[in-house]
Amino acid sequence: MTTRFTLSVDAMGGDDAPKMVVEGVALAALKHPGVNFLLFGDESLIAPLVCANPVLAGRVRICHTLEVVAAEDKPSSALRTRRNSSMRLSINAVAEGEAAGIVSAGNTGALMAMAMFVLRTLNGIDRPAIAGVFPTVRGKCVMLDLGANVESDADNLVQFAVMGEVFARRVLGVHSPLVGLLNVGVEELKGHNDVKQAAAILQKSNLPIRFHGFVEGDDIAAGTVDVVVTDGFTGNIVLKSIEGTAKMFVRFLKEALTASLPALMGGLLARLALRRFRDRIDPRCYNGAMFLGLNGVCVKSHGGTDAFGFANAINVACTLIADRLNEGIKDDLAELAVHTLPMNEAGSGS
Amino acid sequence: MTTRFTLSVDAMGGDDAPKMVVEGVALAALKHPGVNFLLFGDESLIAPLVCANPVLAGRVRICHTLEVVAAEDKPSSALRTRRNSSMRLSINAVAEGEAAGIVSAGNTGALMAMAMFVLRTLNGIDRPAIAGVFPTVRGKCVMLDLGANVESDADNLVQFAVMGEVFARRVLGVHSPLVGLLNVGVEELKGHNDVKQAAAILQKSNLPIRFHGFVEGDDIAAGTVDVVVTDGFTGNIVLKSIEGTAKMFVRFLKEALTASLPALMGGLLARLALRRFRDRIDPRCYNGAMFLGLNGVCVKSHGGTDAFGFANAINVACTLIADRLNEGIKDDLAELAVHTLPMNEAGSGS
Repeated sequence: MTTRFTLSVDAMGGDDAPKMVVEGVALAALKHPGVNFLLFGDESLIAPLVCANPVLAGRVRICHTLEVVAAEDKPSSALRTRRNSSMRLSINAVAEGEAAGIVSAGNTGALMAMAMFVLRTLNGIDRPAIAGVFPTVRGKCVMLDLGANVESDADNLVQFAVMGEVFARRVLGVHSPLVGLLNVGVEELKGHNDVKQAAAILQKSNLPIRFHGFVEGDDIAAGTVDVVVTDGFTGNIVLKSIEGTAKMFVRFLKEALTASLPALMGGLLARLALRRFRDRIDPRCYNGAMFLGLNGVCVKSHGGTDAFGFANAINVACTLIADRLNEGIKDDLAELAVHTLPMNEAGSGS
Repeated sequence: MTTRFTLSVDAMGGDDAPKMVVEGVALAALKHPGVNFLLFGDESLIAPLVCANPVLAGRVRICHTLEVVAAEDKPSSALRTRRNSSMRLSINAVAEGEAAGIVSAGNTGALMAMAMFVLRTLNGIDRPAIAGVFPTVRGKCVMLDLGANVESDADNLVQFAVMGEVFARRVLGVHSPLVGLLNVGVEELKGHNDVKQAAAILQKSNLPIRFHGFVEGDDIAAGTVDVVVTDGFTGNIVLKSIEGTAKMFVRFLKEALTASLPALMGGLLARLALRRFRDRIDPRCYNGAMFLGLNGVCVKSHGGTDAFGFANAINVACTLIADRLNEGIKDDLAELAVHTLPMNEAGSGS
């Protein structure tokens, strides 16, 4: 059964928008025949791109606006002054029920500010977080926050832990996810006050969460836990450091396999295996980070991705919508909120 | 000409100490025939290991002590109570002129606290930083702080920039190093107050530093700058995230190249090239982070490394001592300090 719904897309967000966005939508449209798209942005730029992709015929409605959110815009000023921007209008479409979710590759801070304002946060959540899926030697893990917030206090980190746990259970399909707090050491006394306080709350609380304790940077790829909780500053830098490392490795490997005749022949012989290796670590395959904690599906694409990567961000949104995962998360969060607020009066975990 | 000096080694620091340490010393001894070693720690454990490595005959003096710094020790309490520990005595040997430098794989916080107390910081430096060298697609870069401090204010970050610039020039041989400040975006308004203030100081000051501005996580491997400046919390987590990613990649590559007969044959044919690739990204080759900002050479090895990695940390210390690089850094810092303190009265850069 093909699920039918409409997805709202900010066509003007991202380094190479709207070209990269429309081509990404075209790739995703092939994969999701039941999905239609609202494309928000400059019609004179978008229309020719849509025409160039026959798969989009009859499946796209362009919602014209010239206003855009710039990469340099402060979140607060974007929220105040960019009320007719492609980003804002594409979010409004979700709140107004015209679309089931929204995808943007634009300014992260502005997207969060607007999504928070328009869609509102879930009960018990002060700030939404950006969650992303990472490859590990054991499979996959989810890490949050990847940059929705620049600073996070202990309460924020605890809320991220709750949301990440639900995400791992519902989206990654882990039965009883293990949650870790990213730190500079695994010993209790390591780190700054916010992580120490958050660990103390998670350890002592009656939340139905399997808390592993602190994890270090190398525990991410090792798959030590299913959920890695961190502040948005650290999470964003770690995400991009891992992406940069991945690109460097692929380049070094290419250089090694073209450095001599035996290497070249070996590389040719192993090309299928090497392609599978490359796909396994391709950052574009992990593009599409979800804003957790909002009343609506909002997926943030990497601004520097290409059409293939943007299509993956759309895939993420489609999965969340089709499987009604956000509804499940909302229900679970509402239940979990009983345990978090107020912490001292929380009952026993279920 | 072989440079002759004595190196002080904390034989009890690290996950697999003293075995890993003594075997690392043996590997390094082969490479540095002019260097002798003082090994601090439990003689009953160290002596048999030394005997098992003939290369160490006549080149090692064991300085017995049973006291050790534990991984769980708080820096302040280690400083107060572990005055006869292997770590403390090995640092004392440098201050007393018995050794030209010290290497330890023990508790980072305790090592910093003790090294600061015993060796003292350079004029104009409030806190030392741990600097490490990273592979990039353009060559190498140095990043600091990698975990000497959990929190760093704007002044600390500016001092790290100064020290990193000198390190890149003196140790990496970059003529006029480009310095970047790690952040969640390259725009001026991104990030928390400390990085914004540090950027403002570096931009407006008359320091003879080529300041690139903000860089993101993927700029590390891209080699956008020669010096990446960050706080110790972020730097430590990024370092370990990159190491973890490296391990995962090597494992994925191995799995890919053993998954089918053609892949296996291709891998065999390209084995020399693949070994060079692996060496290029081997975290052990980048082991050995230097404490910058102290009156003495102090190198911190990764606690979880093996003998090969520990030998590399010793190599780092030997290079710094043999080339008298720390003396050069001290001179340059003294000159640069004129520009940093007090900032408002700084003269024009040279």
